[in-house]
Amino acid sequence: MGTSLRDVARLAGVSVKTVSNVVNGYAHVSPATRAKVEGALSQLDYRPNLSARNLRQGRTGMIALALPELDAPYFAELSRCVIDAAAEHRWLVIIEQTGGALERERRILDGVRDHHVDGLILSPVAVGAEELAARTDDTALVLLGERIYDGPADHVAIDNVRAAHDVTEHLIGLGRRRIAALGAQDDTASGTAPLRLAGYREALAAHGLPETVVKVDRYQRAEGAAAMARLLASPEPPDAVFCFNDLLALGAMRTALAAGLRVPEDVALAGLDDIEDGRYSTPTLTTIAPDKNQLARIAVDLLKQRIDGHTARPPQEFMAGYDLIVRESTMGGGLSRGAG
Amino acid sequence: MGTSLRDVARLAGVSVKTVSNVVNGYAHVSPATRAKVEGALSQLDYRPNLSARNLRQGRTGMIALALPELDAPYFAELSRCVIDAAAEHRWLVIIEQTGGALERERRILDGVRDHHVDGLILSPVAVGAEELAARTDDTALVLLGERIYDGPADHVAIDNVRAAHDVTEHLIGLGRRRIAALGAQDDTASGTAPLRLAGYREALAAHGLPETVVKVDRYQRAEGAAAMARLLASPEPPDAVFCFNDLLALGAMRTALAAGLRVPEDVALAGLDDIEDGRYSTPTLTTIAPDKNQLARIAVDLLKQRIDGHTARPPQEFMAGYDLIVRESTMGGGLSRGAG
Repeated sequence: MGTSLRDVARLAGVSVKTVSNVVNGYAHVSPATRAKVEGALSQLDYRPNLSARNLRQGRTGMIALALPELDAPYFAELSRCVIDAAAEHRWLVIIEQTGGALERERRILDGVRDHHVDGLILSPVAVGAEELAARTDDTALVLLGERIYDGPADHVAIDNVRAAHDVTEHLIGLGRRRIAALGAQDDTASGTAPLRLAGYREALAAHGLPETVVKVDRYQRAEGAAAMARLLASPEPPDAVFCFNDLLALGAMRTALAAGLRVPEDVALAGLDDIEDGRYSTPTLTTIAPDKNQLARIAVDLLKQRIDGHTARPPQEFMAGYDLIVRESTMGGGLSRGAG
Repeated sequence: MGTSLRDVARLAGVSVKTVSNVVNGYAHVSPATRAKVEGALSQLDYRPNLSARNLRQGRTGMIALALPELDAPYFAELSRCVIDAAAEHRWLVIIEQTGGALERERRILDGVRDHHVDGLILSPVAVGAEELAARTDDTALVLLGERIYDGPADHVAIDNVRAAHDVTEHLIGLGRRRIAALGAQDDTASGTAPLRLAGYREALAAHGLPETVVKVDRYQRAEGAAAMARLLASPEPPDAVFCFNDLLALGAMRTALAAGLRVPEDVALAGLDDIEDGRYSTPTLTTIAPDKNQLARIAVDLLKQRIDGHTARPPQEFMAGYDLIVRESTMGGGLSRGAG
């Protein structure tokens, strides 16, 4: 037999009801009482029977996290942050891969209740406000990391327009004048590509500089490498490229170096995501670092509010912070490189 | 109302029982009949009520995958393979992060039944045969990607000794004579480090070459970078380094290039894992490529056999294949590089 709530209550000098409130994470317990109960819980090594408790509450204690690609480093790093944030509520996380496909995202939106989860965090690529409005599943939902204007669900993102503007300004400040954007996509209502493109264009327009926009299908190294080869083959190759994520930038870097170009002397490169790879590449990669822990924590906390029904406010948009991290791929300071 | 099994049976010209066998994935259906039923299922867009079926079978339709680190690219890529393989059995996958900590792995081994999953795939780092033997949870278990000799559970791995031997032989074959091993760990009963070290030593001994072994705490880029700095500061630095995973190798590469060394002319580098990063680094990274899809599929299939109770055979060890992928970091052919 394990420790009972009664044992904990006796040691803490409070009622069983109060212990139960603390264990269940209810808000209406004073900090002093909560500390006393938590001390007793820890001293007696009390382990709540989560399954039984969840069943009583009609809960499963699990949430689903639906991401385009689990093996894209940005999403792997973000998953880890979400798992860590969810663990604080003793939630387990089911990971679903959408592949960024519309039909798969739609099925998850409307079928997640079949998976017996309490809530869903979705990083949407294909679905837009229309699909969200048509959703019939009422499982709590938070959108993470992409932006859907006026959508019918809470969502958390960084300010992609401003971030793209900042990177482009940085390249302009270094004296670059032929700055390409690598990573535009076919127009969709949602997604970050149009936002990043808008920020890039804003900054160029403010300085009267011409734009060069390269589209890709996916945000992977291979696409970045291929798109860079097209850029280098153009009559007037760029002297700087803002890639819409770090994987594209690392692919582009490979193409540039393999072609014998020096980065940044011949062409400066910048990405977005701050995945670990870019901190160890040669040259290291200049990038925008979204605050992934903050993104994850806000998403999880919003989901908890919705699940607990503590809030009736209309869906809102939340912004997490980001930093421009300047490294060798734009500033130099590493090795100069030349053709072999 | 959706399509019923009866509708499908009528269209396929078989019994309801046969349709049910196909839908439930039972083996004793002829390929021709299965094809007929699957055609009808697809034509009628039949969607089984998974929840109801799972409940009838006392199943949840979910398995847990416990990995050291979700954001280590090898494990992220492996997770994706497991999720894909599990989807073929219509299983959802819950991801658990262990951090490679003994206590956490032990808790998962003995607490996974509380999570309402049908089975567990664990990639163990810290637990050994002793902890496995002491396990009281009887949820189906398969061990993936590390090797525990004579453990009480099925496990799947590549032949780490032979793989390490192959890489070392490759470096010797290139004429390298001061070959260091980067990635040994403090002795533990389980884990791949001792196996990779044994393969490295075997190959060196066969050629009468001296060994240099560098220990690390974790298999991350930062540890590889720091360990390489120590190697380069030694009186007789190595002319080749076999790193026990690709992240260590990419960290070591960063240190070597930043120190103005040419890779591979001054120092050749090889890794193990074949993560995507190493295909786009400059120079590209020579590595061992474990067949991740095969690893995942074997693990999932073994787990299914255990869950279905179709097998009473004692626990076994299964080997997945691997390839030695030779790239620029040992063979050259890319750019030569020099100090800036």
